Amino acid sequence: MKRIESNKNPQIKQWKKLHTKKERDKTGTFMIEGFHLVEEALKSDVIIRELIICEAVDIPSSWNVDNLSFTIVTEKIMQEISDTDTSQGVAAICEQYSVKEGGQFTRLLLVDAVQDPGNLGTMIRTADAAGMDAVIIGEGSVDVYNSKVVRSTQGSIFHLPIVKENLHETIDRLKQKGIKVYGTSLKNAVDYKQAPVEDSFALIVGNEGNGVQAEILEKTDQNLYIPIYGKSESLNVAVAAGILLYHLR
Amino acid sequence: MKRIESNKNPQIKQWKKLHTKKERDKTGTFMIEGFHLVEEALKSDVIIRELIICEAVDIPSSWNVDNLSFTIVTEKIMQEISDTDTSQGVAAICEQYSVKEGGQFTRLLLVDAVQDPGNLGTMIRTADAAGMDAVIIGEGSVDVYNSKVVRSTQGSIFHLPIVKENLHETIDRLKQKGIKVYGTSLKNAVDYKQAPVEDSFALIVGNEGNGVQAEILEKTDQNLYIPIYGKSESLNVAVAAGILLYHLR
Repeated sequence: MKRIESNKNPQIKQWKKLHTKKERDKTGTFMIEGFHLVEEALKSDVIIRELIICEAVDIPSSWNVDNLSFTIVTEKIMQEISDTDTSQGVAAICEQYSVKEGGQFTRLLLVDAVQDPGNLGTMIRTADAAGMDAVIIGEGSVDVYNSKVVRSTQGSIFHLPIVKENLHETIDRLKQKGIKVYGTSLKNAVDYKQAPVEDSFALIVGNEGNGVQAEILEKTDQNLYIPIYGKSESLNVAVAAGILLYHLR
Repeated sequence: MKRIESNKNPQIKQWKKLHTKKERDKTGTFMIEGFHLVEEALKSDVIIRELIICEAVDIPSSWNVDNLSFTIVTEKIMQEISDTDTSQGVAAICEQYSVKEGGQFTRLLLVDAVQDPGNLGTMIRTADAAGMDAVIIGEGSVDVYNSKVVRSTQGSIFHLPIVKENLHETIDRLKQKGIKVYGTSLKNAVDYKQAPVEDSFALIVGNEGNGVQAEILEKTDQNLYIPIYGKSESLNVAVAAGILLYHLR
């Protein structure tokens, strides 16, 4: 067990840097905060490099931390490294786990250039709840290890594989395997209720403003839309993903 | 047309105060920001007290602003009164519109103590999309005129009535009228797919951590749950509302 009391300790600066994508990419790690997320990480296969505990905090006796490296810090340091307004006093540095290729999965959510961290995190949580095998993140989306994404997953980031992949390659592979690929679009699309419930499928959701890219929509087996009965122009992408995943599965 | 160039002008302080619930309640007004929201307000019946335009911004020629009071401000002032990191240079002060009693509505979303502004705003947007008549906000929810709520509605706040009401009274009235009231709960509930599609219904969603209050759940005709097929503990409340509203209607 280490102890850090001086807020000039270089380790603090290093941890704070993990709030940037650049540093997360460089080190292959990310920070999680709060009792719930740390507990979910402990229960999962993710590798925890360091547990960071505030001196004022007692960790639950159920946590198995015997083989973990951990550091005790002051409340002030804890707040300094935290990305939240009020830290719960518990954080961990985890290794990013990379699934290189999504070939083995048959029930998938594909994410094309979703920008909002809350939306991406909520969709990972929803994909988990709906029993998806994995979430494939295409290029141009917010970093999945962004702290707000991780927080919004409510731990689901540790429950199912998150694969970074070129979506064109994913779709080509799925089609070769005979797995139906659904896009989401307001144009050239059918009412989602017409899509049958199937054991294997992939659903693609897209950018908040522009939707799924046209070149991707052209490659799908079918594009679905959710009817708008009122005066709003569209649904939030995470809500739409929930309606569609729960219909399709 | 007025013009404000000095950032000591007392009007600025007054506008900034509208970011607090206290001032919104006192004045019966709220501030909206951005082209999309202001355009939606202009198209609606809401009363706009003041349009605030940054001197560097041209307003669209399609906007009918002839009878509106408006003020031109500097970029610096615009940013100061804005609740966003980068103001679009357009804002408006609107009157809160109060529907005193939800008696005339037959297709309703009832909100019990939802805390997160993004969740409440997204649910109002979803209720609009799903063709609900109104949204009833019970006690203990975040203020509907909070700027993040308004922003998350994407304009739906101007599309359907938002009623503040004691949910016990709402439920009693709905039951007298023979309108089915569904709660959402993980206990003593049936799979939502068993609930029939009906012309009139009310759905109650609850607090992010605690769900719908027990006393309210006891009064419903039936409580519904959404099955969790994976390892997540629950769904985000706005996603759950979307799945249920689109199933029921």
